[in-house]
Amino acid sequence: MDHAGRQTRLQNLLASHRLDALLITHPANVRYLCGFTGSAGALVITEPRVVFFTDGRYTEQARAEVQEARTLVSRKTPLASAGDWLTANGRKPGLKAVGIEGEHLTVAEQIRLKEALPPGIRLRESPPLVERARMVKDENEIARLRAAAVLGASLFDVALKTIRPGIKENEVAAEMEYAARQSGAEGMSFETIVAAGPRSALPHGRASSAPIPPRGFVVCDFGVILAGYCSDMTRTVHVGSPGVQEHRMYEAVREAQQAAVGAIRPGVGVAQIDRVARKILQGKGLGKYFTHSTGHGVGLEIHEAPRVAAGQTEDLQLGMAITVEPGVYLPEVGGVRIEDLVVVTERGAEILAPASKELITI
Amino acid sequence: MDHAGRQTRLQNLLASHRLDALLITHPANVRYLCGFTGSAGALVITEPRVVFFTDGRYTEQARAEVQEARTLVSRKTPLASAGDWLTANGRKPGLKAVGIEGEHLTVAEQIRLKEALPPGIRLRESPPLVERARMVKDENEIARLRAAAVLGASLFDVALKTIRPGIKENEVAAEMEYAARQSGAEGMSFETIVAAGPRSALPHGRASSAPIPPRGFVVCDFGVILAGYCSDMTRTVHVGSPGVQEHRMYEAVREAQQAAVGAIRPGVGVAQIDRVARKILQGKGLGKYFTHSTGHGVGLEIHEAPRVAAGQTEDLQLGMAITVEPGVYLPEVGGVRIEDLVVVTERGAEILAPASKELITI
Repeated sequence: MDHAGRQTRLQNLLASHRLDALLITHPANVRYLCGFTGSAGALVITEPRVVFFTDGRYTEQARAEVQEARTLVSRKTPLASAGDWLTANGRKPGLKAVGIEGEHLTVAEQIRLKEALPPGIRLRESPPLVERARMVKDENEIARLRAAAVLGASLFDVALKTIRPGIKENEVAAEMEYAARQSGAEGMSFETIVAAGPRSALPHGRASSAPIPPRGFVVCDFGVILAGYCSDMTRTVHVGSPGVQEHRMYEAVREAQQAAVGAIRPGVGVAQIDRVARKILQGKGLGKYFTHSTGHGVGLEIHEAPRVAAGQTEDLQLGMAITVEPGVYLPEVGGVRIEDLVVVTERGAEILAPASKELITI
Repeated sequence: MDHAGRQTRLQNLLASHRLDALLITHPANVRYLCGFTGSAGALVITEPRVVFFTDGRYTEQARAEVQEARTLVSRKTPLASAGDWLTANGRKPGLKAVGIEGEHLTVAEQIRLKEALPPGIRLRESPPLVERARMVKDENEIARLRAAAVLGASLFDVALKTIRPGIKENEVAAEMEYAARQSGAEGMSFETIVAAGPRSALPHGRASSAPIPPRGFVVCDFGVILAGYCSDMTRTVHVGSPGVQEHRMYEAVREAQQAAVGAIRPGVGVAQIDRVARKILQGKGLGKYFTHSTGHGVGLEIHEAPRVAAGQTEDLQLGMAITVEPGVYLPEVGGVRIEDLVVVTERGAEILAPASKELITI
C-alpha cells in the first residue's frame, strides 16, 4: 500500500486548512496512513514529519507493520504520548494549530489532551481529510475489496445449502462464518444477519436462535474481512412457494436495486442514486416500507464515506466503492433486501462479485 | 433484568450531580438501562421521565426490546431526536443542565448537539454514572456471565483437539468460533487470539494465517457473547517438549495469576491485585516482560470498569466481575498468558469457569 503517497497528500492539505499538525486517532485512519492494524495507536502528521505512538503491548506489532513513520512506544496511552510529543515540539515556533478528528475523538479525550498541552497550542476540529481520501480506492485497494467480495459471495452458497425449515438462524450464520474462516477471512465485517419469516422485516435482524419457519422470506446480509478490507452483500430467498404478493415485493426491490446500480457513474450525486431506488419503490406503493438509505462506502471499515442517501451532497468519483441495498419491510409480515458491493468505473458500476438476483425458492 | 431499578437508581443520582437530565448514547449503557440491543439508540433520563430515541430501521426491534421507557422513532439520528426533545422540553422550567457521556460522545456530536439546543440548556460532562453502576453485577448478570464463561471455556477443548504443528492459527480459531456458534453464542466477544511460536510474544496476536511451528508456546485468548454478556479466558499450551526456561516462564505466570486471584476480596484495591501479580514476576526477573495490566471488568462489554492496573484507585466490591491475566512476553522468543474471569464474593474470588492451569504439551 502507498503509505508514503497517502501521507504526502495529507501533508499537502495541512496548510490550506491552516493546520500545523494533524492528530489521527481513529484506528482505520491510522492503518490507512501507516499500516498499523492494532487498536491502540495515534499518529501526528506535520509537514516534515510523521510520528506513530503506541503502548508496550504493541511494540513488536508496530515494528512489523508501521511504514513511513517513526514509532514511539510509551507506558501512557497513545493519545497522551502524542500530547507529550506535541508539547515538546510545540516549544519550537510553528506548531500552534493541531487538527483533531472531531467525529472520533471523544469529549473527554479532547479535554485531557487540552489540559496536557501548553497554552500556545490550539486544538481545532479538522474536516474529515483522511475519510475523504479513503473514499476513493486505488488499484491495490480495489483488488483487496474484490477478493473480499468474492470470498464473501461464496458464503451465499453455504447459506443456500443450510437454510431449511426448522434450522436456527444462528446455525446458518455459524456455517457461513465457519466457511469464511476456513477460506482465510480474518473475521466477519459485521454481525451476520439471517432473518427469517416475520423477522425478515427487521432491517438489522442479526441471526437469532429462532428457527426458520416453513414459509417466508429469509434475508441474508453478510460480509468478511480479508487483508483488512470488508465485503458486504445481501440476498433474500423464500422458503416454501412465494405468493403473488411476495413475488411482486421481491421484483420491486430487484428492479430498484438494478436501476440504482445502473445509474452509477462518475459525477452523479449519491442522493440521485438513492432517489432512483426510492422512486421505483414509491411507484409500486412500497416507498414507506423502505426505511433506510440506499447504501454506504466500504473499505477498511464496513460503513465509511460516502453515505448514499437523500440529503447527501457528495458526487460519485472514479474508484469509490459503495453498496447498493434497497429493501422493503412489511412489519410482522416479512422483508426483502438485495445488495451488491460496486466500484465506480469510467463506464458505470462494476459489481465486485456478480451473483444471480433471481428469487430462489428453498 | 431490573431495568426499572437501574433507571431509578440513576435518577436518584441526578440531583447530587446537579444534572436535570442525563443523555445516554453509549450502546452498552443504553442496553443496560432499557434493554435495547441495536446500535442506533439514545436515552434521555430526567427525574420523572425516561425517553428512548431510535430511527426507522429499529421500530420493530424497539417495540420488542425497550423496557420502562417511552420510545420515539424519528428519521433523524437518535442524538438529533434527543436534542429536539430536550429543546421542546427545555422551554419548561427545570431543564437546564444536561449531562453527557464525555468518554463516548464525540467532539463533533457535542458541537452538533450544542448548536441544536436553545441557549438556556447547558451540556455538562457527567461522571461515568452508568459505568459505575455496571461494575457491580446482580444475580441475573452473574448467571449470564457464568453461562458465557462456561460456554467459552468449552472452546479450549476444541483448541486442544485442533492445535498441531502445521495447522494455521486462523484454522484453530475457525474451529473454536464454529463450536461457539453451534453452542448458541451470539458471536465472539473479541477477535480470537491464537498466537504460536514467536507470535505468542505478541500480547494481542490475533489468529493469523501463520502455521503453528513444530515447537513453542501457543497463546489462546478467546471469549463469547451469550445473552449479551461476554466471556474472556486465556490458556497457553506448548507444542513439543518444553525446555527448562519454558517451564520456568510458565510456572512464574501461573504462580502470579493464582496469587492475584487469591488476593481478591471486597475492599482490596485493584492496584493491589496488579501489584501481587507483578511482584511475583519481578521476583523472577520477568517483571519487564509483563507489558500490560493485570485485568479489566467484563460484562455487557469485553472491556469495562474497573481496570485492574497500577495507579487505579478503585476498590473491589462484592459482585464485580474482572479478569486476572498476567503474562510474560520474550520478544522473538515466545509468550505465556493465563487468564480467568472471576466474580468477587464475600469469601474472595469465584472463578466462573474453573479449568486446569497445568502446562499442557501437544
